[in-house]
Amino acid sequence: MTNEELLGITALNSWKLVLGRFDQNLAVLTDEQLQKQVAPGKNRLLYLLGHLTAVHDRMLPMLGIGERLHPELDETYITSPDRALPDPLSAFDLRKAWGEVNGKLTDAFERFTAADWLEKHTAVSDEDFARDPTRNRLAVVMSRTNHASFHSGQAILAK
Amino acid sequence: MTNEELLGITALNSWKLVLGRFDQNLAVLTDEQLQKQVAPGKNRLLYLLGHLTAVHDRMLPMLGIGERLHPELDETYITSPDRALPDPLSAFDLRKAWGEVNGKLTDAFERFTAADWLEKHTAVSDEDFARDPTRNRLAVVMSRTNHASFHSGQAILAK
Repeated sequence: MTNEELLGITALNSWKLVLGRFDQNLAVLTDEQLQKQVAPGKNRLLYLLGHLTAVHDRMLPMLGIGERLHPELDETYITSPDRALPDPLSAFDLRKAWGEVNGKLTDAFERFTAADWLEKHTAVSDEDFARDPTRNRLAVVMSRTNHASFHSGQAILAK
Repeated sequence: MTNEELLGITALNSWKLVLGRFDQNLAVLTDEQLQKQVAPGKNRLLYLLGHLTAVHDRMLPMLGIGERLHPELDETYITSPDRALPDPLSAFDLRKAWGEVNGKLTDAFERFTAADWLEKHTAVSDEDFARDPTRNRLAVVMSRTNHASFHSGQAILAK
């Protein structure tokens, strides 16, 4: 294995590790428990799940992997604060959407070569990318991995 | 720049971005505010700062960068839960330690080549590393970056 291949695989492992831990915690929560807030007056666990699902769904077109699967989540879980709008999906369907989105992303990442990781994402212009080649797909995935860790830290407080 | 150099730099950016955001939030908190708990009955902000400082300090020998700077933090901030032991440093000195430790790490990372990132860390045996070469320094740094994000998500709740 070349250095560049190994670097890509190491980065992908980090994504899988963070999502795997999140899913382990999610699996032991009932749908009722997902209505709990992470702290008094803060977001519900269900909101965090919807938020992460919507943000990850946006990566599909952003990384050139495919069309969005769940654009209906954005208004409730990205644009609006928790409880401003009714939940568009049941907890059951949201768990399913979360699994589908991450499955599709991870399948694509597994096939990425080092050169694929270093391609520009669609939210950066050719000009900006020429100036700063670190605005690549790997940067997006690492940023989303950190974002998932950030909200995992909050979700764990509801335990 | 080669692909492998660019992958290393992209990963390092993620570490710097997460710490930079944490530091921005830390800078606007008074020492008194660091005594606040992130949620009722949960860790104080000062405990999280001590915990992250101790965990990052441990990376110095783990990644072959140097001796530990603050081993005195482990008992209070790694081995024990919050408030079990008195804080060994003032908030002022803990902030200073946090900056020193991260400065020393980041300076070393800035000089890492792709091959350096892929070296084994000292907490894995030669045998295990031969079996799984993803147990390298990059994996440690990405894991600690996610760990810092995890606690950043908690710290933000105290706002």
